[in-house]
Amino acid sequence: MYQLTARDIRRRNRFGVLQAVYAAVGHSSRQEIARATGLSFATVGNMISELLDVGVLVELGYDAPGIGRPRAQLAINPERGMLVGVDIAETALHFDLFDLAMTVQRSVEIPVDPAATEPADVVALITRGIGELTAADADKVLGVGLSVPGLVEPVGGVSVFSPYWHWHDVPLAQLLEQQLSYPLYLDNPLKASTAAHLWFGAGRDVDDLIVVTLRAGVGIGVVVEGMLYRGVTNSAGEWGHTNLVLDGRECRCGRMGCVEAYVGAPGIVRTLRELAPSSPLIDADDAVTIAAIAAAADRGDAVALEVIDKTGNYLGVTVANLVNLFNPRTIVFGDLVADHLGARLLDVTRRVAARHAMTDPFAAVTLQLSTLPHNPASLGAATFALEGFLADRETFGSIAARRALRTSTP
Amino acid sequence: MYQLTARDIRRRNRFGVLQAVYAAVGHSSRQEIARATGLSFATVGNMISELLDVGVLVELGYDAPGIGRPRAQLAINPERGMLVGVDIAETALHFDLFDLAMTVQRSVEIPVDPAATEPADVVALITRGIGELTAADADKVLGVGLSVPGLVEPVGGVSVFSPYWHWHDVPLAQLLEQQLSYPLYLDNPLKASTAAHLWFGAGRDVDDLIVVTLRAGVGIGVVVEGMLYRGVTNSAGEWGHTNLVLDGRECRCGRMGCVEAYVGAPGIVRTLRELAPSSPLIDADDAVTIAAIAAAADRGDAVALEVIDKTGNYLGVTVANLVNLFNPRTIVFGDLVADHLGARLLDVTRRVAARHAMTDPFAAVTLQLSTLPHNPASLGAATFALEGFLADRETFGSIAARRALRTSTP
Repeated sequence: MYQLTARDIRRRNRFGVLQAVYAAVGHSSRQEIARATGLSFATVGNMISELLDVGVLVELGYDAPGIGRPRAQLAINPERGMLVGVDIAETALHFDLFDLAMTVQRSVEIPVDPAATEPADVVALITRGIGELTAADADKVLGVGLSVPGLVEPVGGVSVFSPYWHWHDVPLAQLLEQQLSYPLYLDNPLKASTAAHLWFGAGRDVDDLIVVTLRAGVGIGVVVEGMLYRGVTNSAGEWGHTNLVLDGRECRCGRMGCVEAYVGAPGIVRTLRELAPSSPLIDADDAVTIAAIAAAADRGDAVALEVIDKTGNYLGVTVANLVNLFNPRTIVFGDLVADHLGARLLDVTRRVAARHAMTDPFAAVTLQLSTLPHNPASLGAATFALEGFLADRETFGSIAARRALRTSTP
Repeated sequence: MYQLTARDIRRRNRFGVLQAVYAAVGHSSRQEIARATGLSFATVGNMISELLDVGVLVELGYDAPGIGRPRAQLAINPERGMLVGVDIAETALHFDLFDLAMTVQRSVEIPVDPAATEPADVVALITRGIGELTAADADKVLGVGLSVPGLVEPVGGVSVFSPYWHWHDVPLAQLLEQQLSYPLYLDNPLKASTAAHLWFGAGRDVDDLIVVTLRAGVGIGVVVEGMLYRGVTNSAGEWGHTNLVLDGRECRCGRMGCVEAYVGAPGIVRTLRELAPSSPLIDADDAVTIAAIAAAADRGDAVALEVIDKTGNYLGVTVANLVNLFNPRTIVFGDLVADHLGARLLDVTRRVAARHAMTDPFAAVTLQLSTLPHNPASLGAATFALEGFLADRETFGSIAARRALRTSTP
């Protein structure tokens, strides 16, 4: 049986309270937080005392006097510490340093040499990047989160399988711990993007959502009742390699007819090639081609519009499958493909999904584009570090013990 | 934010302890229950006191003396009350009366007149069936569970949509409450079958499983961390109408290429007709045809074997999609099609799924046939009533209050 302890609930409530403060953007009162979370005023008060004690929240004074008691205004204390988010992508590593209000303070980007992608090479780049990023603030860093492509085992910090560099069972956290003294948190970009949306995007409004990442690779993250759904080996959400077309296009994974082969950036470029083999929109860089398709569609280019239409037809069928299987409240589309083809692609997708999905769950779902202002992979990686800090038994355990002591001492 | 209260945990632990006692089949000790659930000995002791107080458990005495303290043996008290499970199917209503050990005490079956399927007609049949079933034991019934086809809103007891009889928003619980005074619990056969497997089947061993129901209609139930996953409008698991073949066969839902059109009983019969239009295996009753295919395959009949092979190829692809999306520990196949074509169909399905699923989640999953000894829909419906009784705030709230009073009174 899955065990759920009082500590789980406490941590979950702590996350909920803090998510409400982040969502308020600026400041919030205990009353507003209780309303936003649905938690009792007593629980909210309790969690806030804890968060004030550890310095995560600060009181900004009271709201303007009027009818009723004045309300203490609470805000995140940006100076409490810093978080690092690292997006490890195929061609470059991207590093962001956030204050605790999740505002980017500094960024660093380091290209990856395609000839030097052994674990030791990448570990050296990560160490260098974090060094440059945190130089002046090394003692303020509460934790480092890394978005690592492929299949990740987050508890041990192992890259189980990385599709770009053909890594198998690389103990990445262990290798990094020899160079870095920060707490480390690893997971893949789908999970990172989903954590970012859960804390700072659509997850502010709903508890059940699916985050669809559309870049070269595609995949989903599923949030159930406010929690990231991982599956038994943390590989839930491998939607990119579910079958869309029986005996269809060969996918780069070697299987036939995968979703990714149709709605990932290279798949969309392939659709364009099939329609117009010598189209001037085609560039060696798929990202440039996707941007060119978007620009051409804006000009009314028939081929570009047909590419978007076909892609939306594929996407709509498989999104309908997600609606039928998961019955979520919201599906958010983000990353490269959504950034460029966004509104047009979503229109077709929605129309096709409406035809293929069951009536009732489709009526319950909203399909929308991501509104996150930042690279969701690095923001999400930093969110792992934030969650790790907030779940830290040393920080919060000692606080709880101290508070218990205080209460029990006359 | 999703609220999780101390009462939720308490109820969940209570379910867990009782599931362990049912799984032990016969009797069990506090020590064995603590081991099986992973709960602390204190929590187990606490839950068992509660369950003894309300008479759900009984102590049978102590195990044979040996090394260590003797252990009190606990068992379900079958006489504590009775539960009714009703399976509402297209052609007949099936009623089972269970004691609290979930042993069938009596059964009733009433055919449905195809010309009389208005809500009032079916309500009259249900009332009649329950009356016949419980005549001698009316005062012992703790609750009635109903498995209602289609989309069900369980909290209000509404049949939102029933595919057989074209019901829309029928307030079934409300209509039945005018005739019956028992607590009523409604959900659909997928959810019922999943609840049955969670308590009495594969769910005894794993916390993350998918139950695949294969009869005329097909669908799945998903169990995540020991809890039935419902989605935001209780329609999660509508796998039968996910798309398997783009622009494929017309499904009886009106869409094209649905999973159900290939692996549901009528879909399999259609595959047979396509291969051998005048096959002697074909009967007007699909269930008879499926049985005939199974018997012919046992004789080595080439057409029958090809039907199973094709069906397994379809099933394997879509099961691989479930493995990739949900990353479960176990997938159980049950009901009509699995009962007849079971082992042969599962062999092909497993082989094809291995080819289509991602390597790691496929390595983590076991595909198996259901071993439940009983109609999973009526057993599952009775399980809803069992869960309802165990979650009853009156029964357990008053117990908790009484216990608190007892402890606090000097």
